[in-house]
Amino acid sequence: MKHVLAEIITIGDEILYGQITDTNSQWISAELDKAGIRTKRKVSIGDQKPEILSAIEEAQTRADIILITGGLGPTKDDITKKTFAEYFGVEMYQDKSVLENIENLFKSRGRELNELNQQQASVPKNARVIMNLVGTAPGMWFEKKGKVLVSMPGVPSEMKKMMSEQIIPLLQERFDTPFILHKMIKTIGIGESKLAPIIADWEDNLPEHIKLAYLPRMGQVRLRLTAFGTNKEKLILDIAKQIEKVFPIIDKYVYGFDNEEVEHTIGNLLLQKKQTLATAESCTGGLLADKITDIPGCSAYFKGGIVAYSNDIKVSQLGVSAATLEVHGAVSEQTAMEMAENVRKRYNADYGISTTGIAGPDGGVPGKPVGTIYIGYSDKNETFAKLLQLTKDRHININFTYNAILNLLRKKLMEIE
Amino acid sequence: MKHVLAEIITIGDEILYGQITDTNSQWISAELDKAGIRTKRKVSIGDQKPEILSAIEEAQTRADIILITGGLGPTKDDITKKTFAEYFGVEMYQDKSVLENIENLFKSRGRELNELNQQQASVPKNARVIMNLVGTAPGMWFEKKGKVLVSMPGVPSEMKKMMSEQIIPLLQERFDTPFILHKMIKTIGIGESKLAPIIADWEDNLPEHIKLAYLPRMGQVRLRLTAFGTNKEKLILDIAKQIEKVFPIIDKYVYGFDNEEVEHTIGNLLLQKKQTLATAESCTGGLLADKITDIPGCSAYFKGGIVAYSNDIKVSQLGVSAATLEVHGAVSEQTAMEMAENVRKRYNADYGISTTGIAGPDGGVPGKPVGTIYIGYSDKNETFAKLLQLTKDRHININFTYNAILNLLRKKLMEIE
Repeated sequence: MKHVLAEIITIGDEILYGQITDTNSQWISAELDKAGIRTKRKVSIGDQKPEILSAIEEAQTRADIILITGGLGPTKDDITKKTFAEYFGVEMYQDKSVLENIENLFKSRGRELNELNQQQASVPKNARVIMNLVGTAPGMWFEKKGKVLVSMPGVPSEMKKMMSEQIIPLLQERFDTPFILHKMIKTIGIGESKLAPIIADWEDNLPEHIKLAYLPRMGQVRLRLTAFGTNKEKLILDIAKQIEKVFPIIDKYVYGFDNEEVEHTIGNLLLQKKQTLATAESCTGGLLADKITDIPGCSAYFKGGIVAYSNDIKVSQLGVSAATLEVHGAVSEQTAMEMAENVRKRYNADYGISTTGIAGPDGGVPGKPVGTIYIGYSDKNETFAKLLQLTKDRHININFTYNAILNLLRKKLMEIE
Repeated sequence: MKHVLAEIITIGDEILYGQITDTNSQWISAELDKAGIRTKRKVSIGDQKPEILSAIEEAQTRADIILITGGLGPTKDDITKKTFAEYFGVEMYQDKSVLENIENLFKSRGRELNELNQQQASVPKNARVIMNLVGTAPGMWFEKKGKVLVSMPGVPSEMKKMMSEQIIPLLQERFDTPFILHKMIKTIGIGESKLAPIIADWEDNLPEHIKLAYLPRMGQVRLRLTAFGTNKEKLILDIAKQIEKVFPIIDKYVYGFDNEEVEHTIGNLLLQKKQTLATAESCTGGLLADKITDIPGCSAYFKGGIVAYSNDIKVSQLGVSAATLEVHGAVSEQTAMEMAENVRKRYNADYGISTTGIAGPDGGVPGKPVGTIYIGYSDKNETFAKLLQLTKDRHININFTYNAILNLLRKKLMEIE
């Protein structure tokens, strides 16, 4: 069956200078994927007319749908809109409904309309206007020779609202879309090249319409299954069958599926057990608490945490003994253990976890180079700590530590090993 | 003068499915920019041979340098390498130095080499091999008709090391690069359309070779000046002159320049004053501490923080009075003030800041809808809190709150207003 193909064009010099990460195109392609539309290519170009024209011309030879973000905004030139007018051979005009929308927006915010904002109501004559309910730059839908071209503002919140509420439904109405089904199996604590031989037999026997991909990420490997077809129910069953086969081989590494993160898994396990958690962080500096509290509803199991960055806070607020710090140092098995145990008791939680280490780039000492990190664990039966000998890179160290301590807690909660 | 132009191609189905954000191309273009090489276009494609071939063929009509990431890895097909061999019309061979590098890497990690890994030493005959010192997939440098094509692994840490240490120096040796100079002026607490009219006169009088762009971001607007030319010293002076002109008009909104974040500004101010900070977070859940501790050297001014997610922790660990929670609730001016003041005193810091609110998506109550958030401030002279009435979006609320509390602290430290 024929796939409906899309190409995404993001416009902005700041993307080419490397000053911002283009997160729009990632979000858009994920939404298209859910709607059964396959992204064939993504292109980023600067705010120049010849670039915009050539990108559109090339895209229409490859794709059924061209989605463009950026190049619109009160302080930007209207190069983008004029380029569309030229491409389609039409004039510009001021759209009343857009002007009204801009006026209402300003009224509701108690602000004065200026000329810059009024100009934003100007659009090419063949555009079907897509109202921007949260900003001043309108979206535009064009059709030419069976191809659809949609222009959206580059501000992510405006683009996302417009895309979810208006453009995706219009695309689904306009095109006959097939089913693409993904299932992500998420593993932690095993590397890609160790995992591959374990599941090689299973992989070799996957049916034709199901593909497997390995997606490694700091301390984790995600296995993505993708199935294509016309019958959604059948695809769901086909994928379920494959998961049933592979799961027993890798179950102790699997913490979840799809958008589930390891902090969701831990949250669910704590909810089931009606137990609670507290964190004591030094080298992760709040990342652990931040990630745990990213999950709505975490207040049911997360008591709170402490970022004990300085030694006096470790003593006064966490009750680590001054003698421990004196004898073993802040980066030691003993300190990690006291941190985990004390935060558990002081915060009246069932589990306490801790991190302490030299994240880098500086701070290494003889016998404890940058990358020397301890993670601590405590419950009512036992308290222990583990040494991680990591890299020179602060970012890698912090993120790897975060994955390691959450995996340790996950295994304890699931009683693995 | 002629610019040296580059095109970046990132390969990976997972990018097109929207399952990962392509951060590689952002990092690469920022590095090229520093080296005076201008990125003309970025393209993302899937792991298919025809796609790779067509992207390379198109790129070489536009750019002098083609940089490719992804499509290499132990469990990936060697589609990418075979496509290069086909494009250049050469055979593949096993490179001894690459094989040795892989063997050493495995030895140092105490792991067994398998066949998958050995295959990674296979490269097209015309490739100049770029050693990968931290991974198994080698980089490759090709030349054809005056154009350079470089292939790198997709794992960010491997790609970055290879690019910084080997590829950028080679490119600078190979091409005569001009100067592109950027200066970013970073503002906080004023919107784009309010800022534009204030600096319109200055903007209109910028010299031809200096361009201005507005880059809005949650609660912040960055102003980017870009100058082009052959004389680096002159460009630095030209930009400095323009900043001298605009600065007095917007100084109270400017917190820094270039890669400086507001947490750097605060860190520097605290260092100068030899003063210290502690944080008490509820709705930001550790983000504040996490961002502050992202700055190397923060231990000189950051005492630590507490994530007081549950009410009993607010009472037991932070000393918020039970009566305050009873009468005013956890989300109230009084609670925010007690949190800021108590964390300052308990952590023996000069400044205490706090956040408490309903971030959403749930938890709204009559009179306190989702988005009701208080930020608190305390020093030895005064303690107060401010109400922020934000949106329904958890992510926006947490990030906006974080910007607002840091801007409040910045203004206090700089004695603005």
